[in-house]
Amino acid sequence: MRPSMRNGTMSKSIKAQNKERLYLFDTTLRDGAQTTGVDFSVEDKRLIATLLDELGIDYIEGGYPGANPTDTAFFGDRPKLAHAKFTAFGMTKRAGRSASNDPGLAATLDADTDAVCLVAKSSSFQVAVALGISEEENLEGIAESVKAVAARGREPMIDCEHFFDGYKLNRDYALACVHAALDNGARWAVLCDTNGGTLPDEVERIVGEVIASGVPGEKLGIHAHNDTENAVANSLAAIRAGVRQVQGTLNGLGERCGNANIVSIVPTLLLKPLYADRFEIGVTHERLKSLVHVSRTLDEILNRAPNRYAPYVGESAFASKAGIHVSAILKDPTTYEHVPPESVGNKRRIAVSDQAGKSNILARLEEAGIAVDPQDRRISRLLDEVKEREFLGYSYDGAEASFELLARRILGTVPEFFDVESFRVLVERRYNAIGDLVTVSEATVKVVVDGEKFISVGEGNGPVNALDQALRKDLGKYSPYIEDLSLADFKVRILTSGTEAVTRVMIESMDRAGERWFTVGVSPNIVDASFQALTDSITYKLLRDNAPVPATHTRKEKAGA
Amino acid sequence: MRPSMRNGTMSKSIKAQNKERLYLFDTTLRDGAQTTGVDFSVEDKRLIATLLDELGIDYIEGGYPGANPTDTAFFGDRPKLAHAKFTAFGMTKRAGRSASNDPGLAATLDADTDAVCLVAKSSSFQVAVALGISEEENLEGIAESVKAVAARGREPMIDCEHFFDGYKLNRDYALACVHAALDNGARWAVLCDTNGGTLPDEVERIVGEVIASGVPGEKLGIHAHNDTENAVANSLAAIRAGVRQVQGTLNGLGERCGNANIVSIVPTLLLKPLYADRFEIGVTHERLKSLVHVSRTLDEILNRAPNRYAPYVGESAFASKAGIHVSAILKDPTTYEHVPPESVGNKRRIAVSDQAGKSNILARLEEAGIAVDPQDRRISRLLDEVKEREFLGYSYDGAEASFELLARRILGTVPEFFDVESFRVLVERRYNAIGDLVTVSEATVKVVVDGEKFISVGEGNGPVNALDQALRKDLGKYSPYIEDLSLADFKVRILTSGTEAVTRVMIESMDRAGERWFTVGVSPNIVDASFQALTDSITYKLLRDNAPVPATHTRKEKAGA
Repeated sequence: MRPSMRNGTMSKSIKAQNKERLYLFDTTLRDGAQTTGVDFSVEDKRLIATLLDELGIDYIEGGYPGANPTDTAFFGDRPKLAHAKFTAFGMTKRAGRSASNDPGLAATLDADTDAVCLVAKSSSFQVAVALGISEEENLEGIAESVKAVAARGREPMIDCEHFFDGYKLNRDYALACVHAALDNGARWAVLCDTNGGTLPDEVERIVGEVIASGVPGEKLGIHAHNDTENAVANSLAAIRAGVRQVQGTLNGLGERCGNANIVSIVPTLLLKPLYADRFEIGVTHERLKSLVHVSRTLDEILNRAPNRYAPYVGESAFASKAGIHVSAILKDPTTYEHVPPESVGNKRRIAVSDQAGKSNILARLEEAGIAVDPQDRRISRLLDEVKEREFLGYSYDGAEASFELLARRILGTVPEFFDVESFRVLVERRYNAIGDLVTVSEATVKVVVDGEKFISVGEGNGPVNALDQALRKDLGKYSPYIEDLSLADFKVRILTSGTEAVTRVMIESMDRAGERWFTVGVSPNIVDASFQALTDSITYKLLRDNAPVPATHTRKEKAGA
Repeated sequence: MRPSMRNGTMSKSIKAQNKERLYLFDTTLRDGAQTTGVDFSVEDKRLIATLLDELGIDYIEGGYPGANPTDTAFFGDRPKLAHAKFTAFGMTKRAGRSASNDPGLAATLDADTDAVCLVAKSSSFQVAVALGISEEENLEGIAESVKAVAARGREPMIDCEHFFDGYKLNRDYALACVHAALDNGARWAVLCDTNGGTLPDEVERIVGEVIASGVPGEKLGIHAHNDTENAVANSLAAIRAGVRQVQGTLNGLGERCGNANIVSIVPTLLLKPLYADRFEIGVTHERLKSLVHVSRTLDEILNRAPNRYAPYVGESAFASKAGIHVSAILKDPTTYEHVPPESVGNKRRIAVSDQAGKSNILARLEEAGIAVDPQDRRISRLLDEVKEREFLGYSYDGAEASFELLARRILGTVPEFFDVESFRVLVERRYNAIGDLVTVSEATVKVVVDGEKFISVGEGNGPVNALDQALRKDLGKYSPYIEDLSLADFKVRILTSGTEAVTRVMIESMDRAGERWFTVGVSPNIVDASFQALTDSITYKLLRDNAPVPATHTRKEKAGA
């Protein structure tokens, strides 16, 4: 076997017998929510918490109970987590009042959580300028608040805000804050580079000094920001120096330039012997394969395009463009890949050749259970059609049902169950009889099923909803098959295709049995795009449930529109 | 004067009497051109070279003469550079032929440049697997090629490809490659982390060992990639360990996850005492103020949206959203800013959001030029209204114009320029006269302006477009004010608010002068949400352009809907 350069497996990596446990703390839902342009709904928060829990994160900070209606609602009905400790964020008690008489702290403590992370300033400059209280009052705030958290049976931790800047200015006071937390029962004191301006060598030196002064590294965490593009490096530097908790966010969300990107840190900890040989984390190699999925789902929730250049998970992270690189990769992937793309659920991408495309299509047909001879000429036609449609804005990656229909149509196996002759959607805003402004949506659909014409009218809270209601109201003999079909989700994205803006609609449908399928439609007209996705959804259901082929069946070539 | 935390100016930073010179090498035009989706024209290259030269970069690598028509044309008419050394990239001579008889090398040497950077493998694994030649042949290739460059009067340097992986595998061979370059007259041997998988502590250790073995750091460079999100940290680690040339690209362009981002490295070198006190670079503090401009110009050339979260230069790099941060920043900017935004040509930004406190709102009002007494009770009403609306799905963080209107409405200063009595939007899909399926959209709007009623009809490629056309067709005496208003972008997001799905529409508008403003609308009905954002956009324009208040003006309290 040829030696592989990957992961330094050629170097003698003697695995430590007893690895040290390193804890991962995610703050996507709290510090990540500070990102300009990011605004999570309660439902978003629930979904993200589940993703993080499944990935194997140890602590999930959900937000700041009581600070805003979203967080209050989210903490009011805590997500079911299998492994992670659900954590509330809050502030230490105010100076001049007792911990039991501080409404802000009370809201944090009243939330049903496993752990509580309170932020406290650890810089004498900040205490004086931003808080305007005495240094002693601040220390007392930390001590009393930690005790109050412990008294409520929650795991207490303190975010030492501005720790590094504070340490450079007044070492003793910064350390006193850490001690005020740990000596009073905090499980963790998290050293925060709040302004993000500290550089990796400073982080390593300062953390080393803190531990040398007698603070146990097993009780220290690191919270880094990306203002100098060193958030990941600062986190790794702190781990090297001895901290055992690392805080970060999915895709590096966070105020200003973001927090340390947990999506970049986790694979480094698991795949690079320098860390993997020394530390144990909650994420397994098996779960690591979901990393691309986790990262993309967050972007989907935020409705933003994934960063194709993102380390490990970006679409281009394992892409080669340079000719010399491609030929070397074909000889041995380890020549130009630092880790195997599959380890994080990613894929190698090489300048698209017809061959590569074809094997991709064949793999997907097999997945859909469509048996076809690899030499069949229709495979190339399908490949061309997919490429053409993806250029127009379709995305078959997330719309498997539409891909399957497209493939079966080109292979000639999809009956035309129904034919929509025309539809009409009306949206009207007017004053109603009692003088209120109302907006009503109504749709009329004319559909032919087996030679018989049906006209249906539907009402809805928007044009697409009305169209969906009308379309499914009466499909004649097929009506029983779609009785249990319902729309689970509906997503809209405006794309620029060439010089024109088009709308891509993705619809998630489900049936009574809980099966889900995804369809897509693209058009400059959002109603038209939705119509394509809706009819694909219905056709897919009829096909899957073996609805009888209509007697007057004449197969149409053109898909969707 | 109050002590400032910024830049650690409080710590005793004794400036070195004689700073060491650190050289900046930009490879945007060569390695950056390997980015997926990036394709520079000759004109683009010329413009970027000029930008880099003006910024104060020492070496500008222009491309690979002879490798493609663009690079051949670019080198055929070299850009006029005031300071930087114009550099050609190429490969060392092939094994089995002399340097003078290698057409690839000849093309590189024939180009009119100041310096030549040749890539050579420095890993025995790569020499065997990717090149398939002997280790001695590879060393001879380096030696002879360097001599050939020097003989043509150009400054020679060698990119030691795969240096770090090679060093870990076969230390002696990697060092032999460095010596083959330097001993034969190369000005620089650049240590490349080609696959981007090396971590900062490994870089620091290995560079340290190389220098300890007798190689002078003044002749070493670092070339890092971002595959673990550590390219900037790896570059800084190598500088600490002793290299004196750092390679990178603008905005971190480059194959896969990109190269070290020179836009992040330069301000750190100039503004952070840890580096600024030790090193001299070609970029002055005065030129640093053009950094935002340089970074944005590159995005403009590439026709892509700037990364708003980019360190130092991003639109959000100095933005604050959290209430506690905002109130501290208003007291003293150094509380939450690691460097002054103006030092890199950036600006401070304060956002309004769900997370907002009263201080955000006050800061935003001031930004919008709205004078109001901080004790005014309407401020609290506005804050409550913002929180309530963000809970419903509005996002004012990206829709400043809608925020300003909301604020002015609550303060009672927005006239009702026009009143839309009703609208009707019809979307119809049918067969047209020649048998084609078409989808048409048509909207009718009834609007009252100063007691006079106008009815307009518009057609569009979708319901929102049709509504926009109809709405702006005739606003009576206000028509001249909105003549030059156009829609620049339209974004849709489906949110779950409570149990119901609502649609959030964000609209970006612009006028002839190129000014842009953003408005938002939310409703279960996409047409209704769009309508809110459209009317906000028009009202904002009328207000901003001081359109006369209508005679029959009766202020309405309720915003948007």
